[in-house]
Amino acid sequence: MQGQQQQAYDRGITIFSPDGRLYQVEYAREAVKRGTASVGVRTAEGVVLAADKRSRSELMEPASVEKLHKIDDHVGIASAGHVADARQLIDFARRQAQVNRLRYGEEMGIETLTKTVTDHIQQYTQVGGARPFGVALIVGGIENGEPRLFETDPSGTPYEWKALSIGANRADVREHLEAEYHEELTLEEGIELALSALSESGEETGLEPDGVGLATIEVGDEQYVDHDAASIEGYLDEFSLLAAPEAESEDGDEPVDE
Amino acid sequence: MQGQQQQAYDRGITIFSPDGRLYQVEYAREAVKRGTASVGVRTAEGVVLAADKRSRSELMEPASVEKLHKIDDHVGIASAGHVADARQLIDFARRQAQVNRLRYGEEMGIETLTKTVTDHIQQYTQVGGARPFGVALIVGGIENGEPRLFETDPSGTPYEWKALSIGANRADVREHLEAEYHEELTLEEGIELALSALSESGEETGLEPDGVGLATIEVGDEQYVDHDAASIEGYLDEFSLLAAPEAESEDGDEPVDE
Amino acid sequence: MQGQQQQAYDRGITIFSPDGRLYQVEYAREAVKRGTASVGVRTAEGVVLAADKRSRSELMEPASVEKLHKIDDHVGIASAGHVADARQLIDFARRQAQVNRLRYGEEMGIETLTKTVTDHIQQYTQVGGARPFGVALIVGGIENGEPRLFETDPSGTPYEWKALSIGANRADVREHLEAEYHEELTLEEGIELALSALSESGEETGLEPDGVGLATIEVGDEQYVDHDAASIEGYLDEFSLLAAPEAESEDGDEPVDE
Amino acid sequence: MQGQQQQAYDRGITIFSPDGRLYQVEYAREAVKRGTASVGVRTAEGVVLAADKRSRSELMEPASVEKLHKIDDHVGIASAGHVADARQLIDFARRQAQVNRLRYGEEMGIETLTKTVTDHIQQYTQVGGARPFGVALIVGGIENGEPRLFETDPSGTPYEWKALSIGANRADVREHLEAEYHEELTLEEGIELALSALSESGEETGLEPDGVGLATIEVGDEQYVDHDAASIEGYLDEFSLLAAPEAESEDGDEPVDE
Amino acid sequence: MQGQQQQAYDRGITIFSPDGRLYQVEYAREAVKRGTASVGVRTAEGVVLAADKRSRSELMEPASVEKLHKIDDHVGIASAGHVADARQLIDFARRQAQVNRLRYGEEMGIETLTKTVTDHIQQYTQVGGARPFGVALIVGGIENGEPRLFETDPSGTPYEWKALSIGANRADVREHLEAEYHEELTLEEGIELALSALSESGEETGLEPDGVGLATIEVGDEQYVDHDAASIEGYLDEFSLLAAPEAESEDGDEPVDE
Amino acid sequence: MQGQQQQAYDRGITIFSPDGRLYQVEYAREAVKRGTASVGVRTAEGVVLAADKRSRSELMEPASVEKLHKIDDHVGIASAGHVADARQLIDFARRQAQVNRLRYGEEMGIETLTKTVTDHIQQYTQVGGARPFGVALIVGGIENGEPRLFETDPSGTPYEWKALSIGANRADVREHLEAEYHEELTLEEGIELALSALSESGEETGLEPDGVGLATIEVGDEQYVDHDAASIEGYLDEFSLLAAPEAESEDGDEPVDE
Amino acid sequence: MQGQQQQAYDRGITIFSPDGRLYQVEYAREAVKRGTASVGVRTAEGVVLAADKRSRSELMEPASVEKLHKIDDHVGIASAGHVADARQLIDFARRQAQVNRLRYGEEMGIETLTKTVTDHIQQYTQVGGARPFGVALIVGGIENGEPRLFETDPSGTPYEWKALSIGANRADVREHLEAEYHEELTLEEGIELALSALSESGEETGLEPDGVGLATIEVGDEQYVDHDAASIEGYLDEFSLLAAPEAESEDGDEPVDE
Repeated sequence: MQGQQQQAYDRGITIFSPDGRLYQVEYAREAVKRGTASVGVRTAEGVVLAADKRSRSELMEPASVEKLHKIDDHVGIASAGHVADARQLIDFARRQAQVNRLRYGEEMGIETLTKTVTDHIQQYTQVGGARPFGVALIVGGIENGEPRLFETDPSGTPYEWKALSIGANRADVREHLEAEYHEELTLEEGIELALSALSESGEETGLEPDGVGLATIEVGDEQYVDHDAASIEGYLDEFSLLAAPEAESEDGDEPVDE
Repeated sequence: MQGQQQQAYDRGITIFSPDGRLYQVEYAREAVKRGTASVGVRTAEGVVLAADKRSRSELMEPASVEKLHKIDDHVGIASAGHVADARQLIDFARRQAQVNRLRYGEEMGIETLTKTVTDHIQQYTQVGGARPFGVALIVGGIENGEPRLFETDPSGTPYEWKALSIGANRADVREHLEAEYHEELTLEEGIELALSALSESGEETGLEPDGVGLATIEVGDEQYVDHDAASIEGYLDEFSLLAAPEAESEDGDEPVDE
Repeated sequence: MQGQQQQAYDRGITIFSPDGRLYQVEYAREAVKRGTASVGVRTAEGVVLAADKRSRSELMEPASVEKLHKIDDHVGIASAGHVADARQLIDFARRQAQVNRLRYGEEMGIETLTKTVTDHIQQYTQVGGARPFGVALIVGGIENGEPRLFETDPSGTPYEWKALSIGANRADVREHLEAEYHEELTLEEGIELALSALSESGEETGLEPDGVGLATIEVGDEQYVDHDAASIEGYLDEFSLLAAPEAESEDGDEPVDE
Repeated sequence: MQGQQQQAYDRGITIFSPDGRLYQVEYAREAVKRGTASVGVRTAEGVVLAADKRSRSELMEPASVEKLHKIDDHVGIASAGHVADARQLIDFARRQAQVNRLRYGEEMGIETLTKTVTDHIQQYTQVGGARPFGVALIVGGIENGEPRLFETDPSGTPYEWKALSIGANRADVREHLEAEYHEELTLEEGIELALSALSESGEETGLEPDGVGLATIEVGDEQYVDHDAASIEGYLDEFSLLAAPEAESEDGDEPVDE
Repeated sequence: MQGQQQQAYDRGITIFSPDGRLYQVEYAREAVKRGTASVGVRTAEGVVLAADKRSRSELMEPASVEKLHKIDDHVGIASAGHVADARQLIDFARRQAQVNRLRYGEEMGIETLTKTVTDHIQQYTQVGGARPFGVALIVGGIENGEPRLFETDPSGTPYEWKALSIGANRADVREHLEAEYHEELTLEEGIELALSALSESGEETGLEPDGVGLATIEVGDEQYVDHDAASIEGYLDEFSLLAAPEAESEDGDEPVDE
Repeated sequence: MQGQQQQAYDRGITIFSPDGRLYQVEYAREAVKRGTASVGVRTAEGVVLAADKRSRSELMEPASVEKLHKIDDHVGIASAGHVADARQLIDFARRQAQVNRLRYGEEMGIETLTKTVTDHIQQYTQVGGARPFGVALIVGGIENGEPRLFETDPSGTPYEWKALSIGANRADVREHLEAEYHEELTLEEGIELALSALSESGEETGLEPDGVGLATIEVGDEQYVDHDAASIEGYLDEFSLLAAPEAESEDGDEPVDE
Repeated sequence: MQGQQQQAYDRGITIFSPDGRLYQVEYAREAVKRGTASVGVRTAEGVVLAADKRSRSELMEPASVEKLHKIDDHVGIASAGHVADARQLIDFARRQAQVNRLRYGEEMGIETLTKTVTDHIQQYTQVGGARPFGVALIVGGIENGEPRLFETDPSGTPYEWKALSIGANRADVREHLEAEYHEELTLEEGIELALSALSESGEETGLEPDGVGLATIEVGDEQYVDHDAASIEGYLDEFSLLAAPEAESEDGDEPVDE
């Protein structure tokens, strides 16, 4: 009967179930879980964004697995879930940030930017004729000299976090973050925490530099910095997170953004 | 057969069932019940709004759990239910209040504001192409020197209350309010009643300062005051409502706004 | 098979059943029956409107249970059924009455006003994309010195009555009205009939002043008068309709407008 | 299987069944049959329209049961079926007649008027987004000195008749008309035929003046005349059609326009 | 399984079935078969249109059973099927013919007129939001001194014929036409063939003048001539096609346009 | 289960099935197969179009069975399938060819014309609110002195062919074409091949001149020539393809365009 | 139950399934697999595009099987899947490239072009009223002197590759590419790899020149070069990839673009 019940709510565009849930939104959350993990960590010195960007084949250019996106000098976004949907929201966020600069002559606040995005997402859950976005975002940046870190989910709810992960194995990664996080992390400690958390999201031990994305925005210069593979390899080595140089990632059951 | 009957009314957008009910609206009320509680108390000295804003994780910024919203100097709103929907109505209320100031050069009345919001909500229950709002609001403020306290529900009906709660465990909390409320409450007694009512909405004994929101609007200055954690801790301590400093709120079955 | 048959007609927006009925309209009539009763009585001296406005809780402001509405000086409306829908029609009626004054410099006739409202209601039963209104109205007022009393129902049909009730227990109340009504009623006798009819609509004996609404429009001054609780208590006392001061109205199975 | 077959055609807006019928139109015809009867008789001296307008309660104003409608000086319409739908078509017909007078400075022909109405009705049976009209009309009037009598049905087909009935018990009434009609009827004989035919449509013997509507348009003055209760009582008495003054019309199974 | 298969294609607006048929169009053809027959015969001297226009009751005006329609001086149309749909196409054809005269100062060609109508019909079989027309037409007229005779069907296909019938018992009537038609028919022989073919379409022997429509357009004057009952009676008598003056046409199972 | 599976994909407008097919497009291809065959042959001297245009009755004008259409001086189209749909595409092609002449002062290329038509067809397979076209076309003509021969199918795909058939018995006819075609055919040999291929598409032996359409466009004059029955009879006789003058084509199971 | 589950998600336009997948997008990917393969290889000297363009019949012009498309001088696209859908995207890409040249006076970057196309594709997976595109593309070209090679899939996700295949037998071909690819390939080695990979996609051994498309864009001149059959035959011969000159490709089970 569970099956039948559920069918009824799937047919129409996003409507309520008898227990007050929006199934299409919950299914969109499943789409997020199917994607590889992204992690965000807020430290006193700045914000760290890290992402699992393993590709399905050694022939795919790692750079084309887009998980980290610069939105403006002072703000970046990490995504998890349906890649093409993420692109729409990233474009939307970039246009909003640009318009804000043009109209008000100043950087857009991280919270304002996040909420502009979530309000846009919410529309796709209430008004008919379209499906919700199957993607979650981590919005990180510097606002008035303070590091800020937000999450947007498919329902269009904004949350602010000290550290969080989205995508695969969220529960495990959160546990790791809750255990290791403290408020006095340096940026480098934040990077270590983000990368170690990321390594919890996959089934293998350790990470490969090519399969990881890392970006930081420091309080000092408020500049989004996209770390290259060499830099990442350095960190992984330093934190003993480098994968053993054995088998290629198989095209198996692991979550992969698509 | 109950199951089959019900299916029929779920498919289309908000239509009547044979017994004259609007199922989508009733399911939206379930969405409200899934949210954490908010409480409003009207006293002769002013209006008290309180909200359960426990977060799902210690890593989430308590401030980002939005349950209390300043609408204008003299009016605030507490919400329960679908967070992203609440944001739409809060934005709508703020715009209405602003427009009223610009157009008529004066504050918008609490009753007028409430009914503008409920008329907006009603449209989403009658005209096709969208679902109802899955959120209830407590609108509290000062109008012509008098404290006023209103409720909006997903059907778009406005009610005025002396004291009320929305969200989780509404029946229990109302019982508490009916037992303890009297017309001659001072503002501080109103705060005590609101917080003690809120503590009835959860399963644990006592409240944690970080997990509570508290706002007051006094008759004297007609200013929305958002109380900080220290102030709230003071009240909780004074009223013996502080939770024992033991276990973290588990990510269990308790209702959480989403 | 009855169940299956019926399902078929519920899915689409208001269409005919094989026996020529509009199910969505009939279900909307059920929504009216779920509401508390309103009564109208026409006397030679004026029109009486009375309504059961018991609230669900002692904490709810009785004044916020809107059942009687002044539309213009010379005309009022009593409603029963879905409250938020009633508000839409009341607003519509008020705008029509205002426009009539502005455009023609005179009061709108009661019959014209009623039919403008019913034509509006009918549109929601024929054109797709919306559901019918789940509310019935009693429109009462003075037109050319004559008291007039009309009913609008969810199908959009206007009827003129000498005395009528809408909402809960309509059949019982009508029987009472048919037995007691006569053309030579004074206004006070009309008030007595309206209140005694109202007391037939609930399960308890007698009425509480706070749970009753009463409005009159006399032929003499053509002014809508909303009677206050003291005035109502006086009438109830005079007509031996006061409830025994015992138990609170329980939040039970009695119909309540929502 | 008949049941299943039929369901399929009910869901969509007016589409063809495998045997080439439009079910929604046929169901709308059932709505007509559920209404009380109206009768039209054409005589050499003029047109007679009569209608069963018994009300559901002695408290309902007989005048508010609208079955006969003056459209213009020279033309009237009798209706049967869904009352609110009838009002839409009556309004449409009146506007058309007015526009014709304004635009061409002359009365609109009865046939032209009828076909303008039926073409309007047809649109609601072919284009999606609305249901057909659940009402039939008898359009009677004088055109170029000649009495004309037309019928419109829910499919939008115009027919011209010498005498006809619509609504309840149509087959019985038609039989009566076919047996009694002849071309040389005087107007008074036409009134007798119309009233006696009307008395065939109900289950009781005889008619009550208050429950009957009667209108005539004579060739001589081309003026729509709405006969009052006294005049009708005179005719009923003269033609021995008066109901015995016994029981009230019960609110039973008899068809009633709604 | 046939039943289930078919259901699937009936729900949506005109779509293809697995064997490449358009069910809604085929059902519309059934609507044509439900109508009384019309016949067209092309002779060297002109075009003959004849139609079965028996009415359902002796009280119905035979002239109001519209089966033959003058479109312009030189062209007429006979219809079969859903009457209200036919009126739409007849109006469309008349407007096209008028526009052609106004724009180009000359009569519209019969073939061009037909194809303008069929293209209009086709739109209702391909674009959603409306159902196909449930009517077939015979378009007959003179073009450049030549008699032309076309058919339009519910799919929107134009065919040119020497002689054809549409509506009830088409197969039998065609057989009769194929057996009797030859190219050298005079107009009078064409009338005889048309009327004798028409008499094949019903179940009774012979035709009644009032139940037959007859129109001719001769090559000589290119004028649409609508023959009156006397003229038709003369032909029926001359061709021994007069019905025996016995029983009235019963309101039985015979096809009747509706 | 096959049946159930399939039903699911038929209800909505053209969507993908689990194996990546567009059922509505495939069903439209079935509509093409239900039509009589058309054949195109490209020779060095020009293009040959031939079509089976047998009519359903001897009373139907063969010329009204439209299978070959002149689009412009240098290009013609042969169709198979749903006739009314074909007319839409033919009109579209003619307008495109005209617009090209007006805008660029030169003939439209055959390939460009074909692709403009197929792009139009594709829209009806992707965007909702309409069904695909149930027709295939052979577009033949001269472009820059070269004969070109294209096919359009219901999916909107353009193919270029040396020789092809569309409609009934396509597989058999193609086999015949593949066996007999060679690049050095003269135009007359091309006509022979087209006609002999056409004779493979039906069940009878040989062709009747009246039931065949033949058009050629030669490289020399680039003029579309529609061959008359006498010319066709000559070819059929010459190539021993004349049907024995026996039985009429019965209205049986043979495919016929409708 | 799998079957039933799935049905529910197929009916509406692209919505999420309970496990977070977009079935219509996944079914569109099946449409891609049904098409013949295309291959792209990036070498230091330029980009190679190759495609299996076997036709279904020897009478079809090989050139009309469109798999390789020049978009601008410096960029080409190879497609696999639904041909008519591919044409829409190719046209879209060409217009974008042209507009870029006009607006900015320079060539459009390969990555920008790809993402403009994928964003267009994404819209068809989220907004209702249309189905997704059933086609994948390989976009190859030179950007700032660097060879680039991208893939677009039906979800609207862009990926950059060193070498890839789309369409039939993708897994086998990828395996071949992964085994043979290295970064130092010369253009000729790239051609060899592309053609040998292509030969893995079919069931037969070897390729026929007419059934293969080959295009290259070299870093030196940035010119899209479409290789003719002779050139292709040369390469196939050189690389020992020529099919044995035996049997014709049968119209069997092999994937063919349609």
